[in-house]
Amino acid sequence: MKWTQARRAQKMNPSVIREILKVTEKPGIISFAGGLPSPKTFPVSAFSAACEKVLREDGHAALQYAASEGYAPLREMVASMLPWNVDPALVLITTGSQQGLDLIAKVLIDEGSRVLVETPTYLGALQAFTPMEPEIVSVASDDGGVDIADLAAKAEGARFFYVLPNFQNPTGRTMPEERRAALSAEAARLGLPLVEDNPYGDLWFDTPPPLPLTARNPEGCVYLGSFSKVLAPGLRLGFMVAPASIFPKLLQAKQAADLHSPGFNQRLVAEVMKDGFLDRHVPTIRALYKSQRDAMLAAMVREMPEGVEWNTPAGGMFLWVRLPEGMNAIELLPRAVERNVAFVPGWAFYADQPDARTLRLSFVTSSVAQIDIGIAALAGAIREMRAGSSASVAGAAPQLEAQPQT
Amino acid sequence: MKWTQARRAQKMNPSVIREILKVTEKPGIISFAGGLPSPKTFPVSAFSAACEKVLREDGHAALQYAASEGYAPLREMVASMLPWNVDPALVLITTGSQQGLDLIAKVLIDEGSRVLVETPTYLGALQAFTPMEPEIVSVASDDGGVDIADLAAKAEGARFFYVLPNFQNPTGRTMPEERRAALSAEAARLGLPLVEDNPYGDLWFDTPPPLPLTARNPEGCVYLGSFSKVLAPGLRLGFMVAPASIFPKLLQAKQAADLHSPGFNQRLVAEVMKDGFLDRHVPTIRALYKSQRDAMLAAMVREMPEGVEWNTPAGGMFLWVRLPEGMNAIELLPRAVERNVAFVPGWAFYADQPDARTLRLSFVTSSVAQIDIGIAALAGAIREMRAGSSASVAGAAPQLEAQPQT
Repeated sequence: MKWTQARRAQKMNPSVIREILKVTEKPGIISFAGGLPSPKTFPVSAFSAACEKVLREDGHAALQYAASEGYAPLREMVASMLPWNVDPALVLITTGSQQGLDLIAKVLIDEGSRVLVETPTYLGALQAFTPMEPEIVSVASDDGGVDIADLAAKAEGARFFYVLPNFQNPTGRTMPEERRAALSAEAARLGLPLVEDNPYGDLWFDTPPPLPLTARNPEGCVYLGSFSKVLAPGLRLGFMVAPASIFPKLLQAKQAADLHSPGFNQRLVAEVMKDGFLDRHVPTIRALYKSQRDAMLAAMVREMPEGVEWNTPAGGMFLWVRLPEGMNAIELLPRAVERNVAFVPGWAFYADQPDARTLRLSFVTSSVAQIDIGIAALAGAIREMRAGSSASVAGAAPQLEAQPQT
Repeated sequence: MKWTQARRAQKMNPSVIREILKVTEKPGIISFAGGLPSPKTFPVSAFSAACEKVLREDGHAALQYAASEGYAPLREMVASMLPWNVDPALVLITTGSQQGLDLIAKVLIDEGSRVLVETPTYLGALQAFTPMEPEIVSVASDDGGVDIADLAAKAEGARFFYVLPNFQNPTGRTMPEERRAALSAEAARLGLPLVEDNPYGDLWFDTPPPLPLTARNPEGCVYLGSFSKVLAPGLRLGFMVAPASIFPKLLQAKQAADLHSPGFNQRLVAEVMKDGFLDRHVPTIRALYKSQRDAMLAAMVREMPEGVEWNTPAGGMFLWVRLPEGMNAIELLPRAVERNVAFVPGWAFYADQPDARTLRLSFVTSSVAQIDIGIAALAGAIREMRAGSSASVAGAAPQLEAQPQT
């Protein structure tokens, strides 16, 4: 039987993160690798009550086919939650915000289209865009996010710039107000559409992040949001807000992709969120993640050898680490796994020219006690590697190198 | 702001069926249009018990991120349900079987690739394939399904043949055993992959349909199934079984599309299905739909003027009707809606050269009493139209003609 695959299939690759998760699946490992919210934050009893109520009061409708746009009360809640004037008719409920990236790729990317991303950027976005065969171009970025001059230099003919301004995945960095203002103005000047991804924005620790880019120019931006980090990822619900000029095409792509997102899940989320639930619930997530970030920062200071650098994220889920000159995070991984600790090499998050010294640590999945043990073990692996005994390294590294991401 | 859409976006169109549903949304209308399962068949209390149990026993895992392949126990249940030897490792849980079509399109269709479909075929498949810009070629079909000689004549270079052998949407027809055997042999001879879509196979009325095509040659087929018709569509869960040679690419496309289907929903379905629930539940759906099909057939015999033709589906949800020579189902629709009855013109289901005399009637959503009234009203509209008063027709028809499907 002759199965001829599409050319784009050759460009698809397994998620490096999922491959790493497999490599690191051993009993007792402390994983800073996956971006998994702490299950402690899932409001299980609120969902249980919502299930009972929705099925009792509205069971037949909740289990029937439904509108591709999404459940109207949920669309209205989303619109009213956002800090700018949003028409609920321009809110599209998606099967996780990952689906929003897939729909954007279908509607906005032709083969060879230039698409701009930050350096580094969210791996899942690279995976969603790649099947539509764009030319993905990395824009230089620093601790405050994208370099505006480099963006302008590369913007000619670009379909959009994909940007994650709040507690970015993978770096944890946040774009400050002045940079946002400058980016928004420059994008408007260039006529460059922005795709703003904001899954982590509510997870701030001390002060809320500055206003989203979309709030500054709704006609020039598509905005992606998620319920995965403030409620639970296992319901697979996110949303997008798009300008009226492209909303109908995104909706048609949504219809063709999965008809609609589960109506039952949409009603559960609407039921749980009513009466200001998030206002009471999200602060508990912030407090938990802040304590874990603090624990990780303290452990880093205590344990890490000289020359290791890291940032201090003001929210979100991730810390970004850079190893000393000459070291490589991919080679470090198997040594760390031997010591029962895992992370994601930063390599996976670059559209081109990876910085092999970087790595991503999630501080949200592990407890403070685990963080203390895990960071000490990681520091031990770094010291060992630095000492130069490279003979014992095997396993994860060659496997990963065989599967470049883009 | 300059939003440049992808070329494929120009080829996307709103679902004609959804547009029709909007046209026909008026109070008191009897709709034979949408393919909506009867809500009476949704096992609401079983789902309610399952929600309680899953959240109590396994809440944190059910609400967490999960494997892209799907929930392992559900994959095993699917494998064991199917009437051939299926490796659970080759079962992929999808966000409705519609998503399976989207993944197949991404993995198997290049721009200009030849894709074969039946005449007529499922509209949602045309919508899922179209964004990847194939050349869709209709294969001649009769009451027994595809014309094997015409298939062979058109198969050269085709990526696959998309086929719905059981109680097809839109025609309700079923491919008999001899035709399946011949199709399977011919596809093997031609090296032509088959994509077999089977959402309705369990909804047989008197005897089960013949063995699926995939059972005869698993290496040459992708098989799509759904929980929407035997449990509930609002959970958006389906599955696909694919050969090992293409499974990894379908899985990578799935990861990029929505990471995974909702783990909570997958656990609910697994919990409801255990202990042979479907063996007790599905016969009640069959009995209900059979009684409604019988009522519709009886009403057709009683009411329809001479020259109107229809088939006798042996299962599923749809009856296929052909108007007398010279009549047009699109022009009939507004007259029918005036009389408070709706249907889908067959026109929407043809990849090319529609038969304008055809229309699809769903017998599953309306009660027997509504079917009696609705068919009488439809017959009245046909008689009126035949009598030739074409002056009052307005509304739906021109709107629909402005939006061809492919």
